[in-house]
Amino acid sequence: MNGKTEYGKKREVHLSFDAALAKAKEALKAEGFGVLTEIDLKAKFKEKLDEDFGNYIILGACNPKYAFEALGKDMDLGLLLPCNVVVYEENGSTFVAAIDAKKMLSVTGGDELERFAVDVNEMLRRAIESI
Amino acid sequence: MNGKTEYGKKREVHLSFDAALAKAKEALKAEGFGVLTEIDLKAKFKEKLDEDFGNYIILGACNPKYAFEALGKDMDLGLLLPCNVVVYEENGSTFVAAIDAKKMLSVTGGDELERFAVDVNEMLRRAIESI
Repeated sequence: MNGKTEYGKKREVHLSFDAALAKAKEALKAEGFGVLTEIDLKAKFKEKLDEDFGNYIILGACNPKYAFEALGKDMDLGLLLPCNVVVYEENGSTFVAAIDAKKMLSVTGGDELERFAVDVNEMLRRAIESI
Repeated sequence: MNGKTEYGKKREVHLSFDAALAKAKEALKAEGFGVLTEIDLKAKFKEKLDEDFGNYIILGACNPKYAFEALGKDMDLGLLLPCNVVVYEENGSTFVAAIDAKKMLSVTGGDELERFAVDVNEMLRRAIESI
C-alpha cells in the first residue's frame, strides 16, 4: 500500500499505535466529528475466529449537522454513514487513513450530496494531516 | 424513495419499527454476520443538535471470516467496513435496507474483492428478504 489508497487519505505516522489512536480521536473532535463507533478488529478476529491480527481500529466519525441535512435529501444515506477513519499497524509502522467521502457518495449515483462530500473530505483531510 | 435505492437493497416491511429492528438483528445473525455497531440517529440528533428525527438505526454488520480474508488482500479495507443495514420509519411506514457491497467495493478501483462482495450481497439480500 505504501501510503497510498485509492479510496481514502492515508498517512504513515511516526507514533505508537496507541498514541496515533488517541490523536486521531482528538483530531476528529477538533474538526467537529463525533466518534460514534469504535471497532477493534484484532479483538474481534481473536474472539470470533481465534486468529491473530495486528492492532487495527475502525472509528466511525460523523458530523451531526451534515448528517442531518444530508438525510433530509436522501433517507437511505444511513447506508453510507458514518465516515470511517482507521488506525492500524503493519510491519512495525503505524498508519492512519480516512475514507474519501466524495468517492463513497459517488455510489448514490447523484451529485446532490457533493457539496457535503467536499466539505467532509476537507475536514477529514485536516484531521489526518494533524495527527 | 418508494422502496428503491441506487446503492442498496431496500424493503418496506409491515412491522413496527421495534419489531423490524429485532428481526433485522436476528436475520443478520442467521446469515453469519455479527452486529458490531448500532447507531441511534434519532437519539444522536436530539443530543447533539436538539433536532427531532424519526426512528432510525444504523446496524454495522460484519462476517468475520470474509473480513479477515479481505483485509489480507487490502489492509485499507477497514475504511469500508462494516456493511450497513438500516431500519427506519418514514411517513408511518417501516423500511429496512442493506448496502450494496459490490457497489461499495467498486470504489476500491479493483476487482480482487468482487468474489467477497457477491457472496456478502447474497447473504445481505437473504437477510433483508427474511424480515
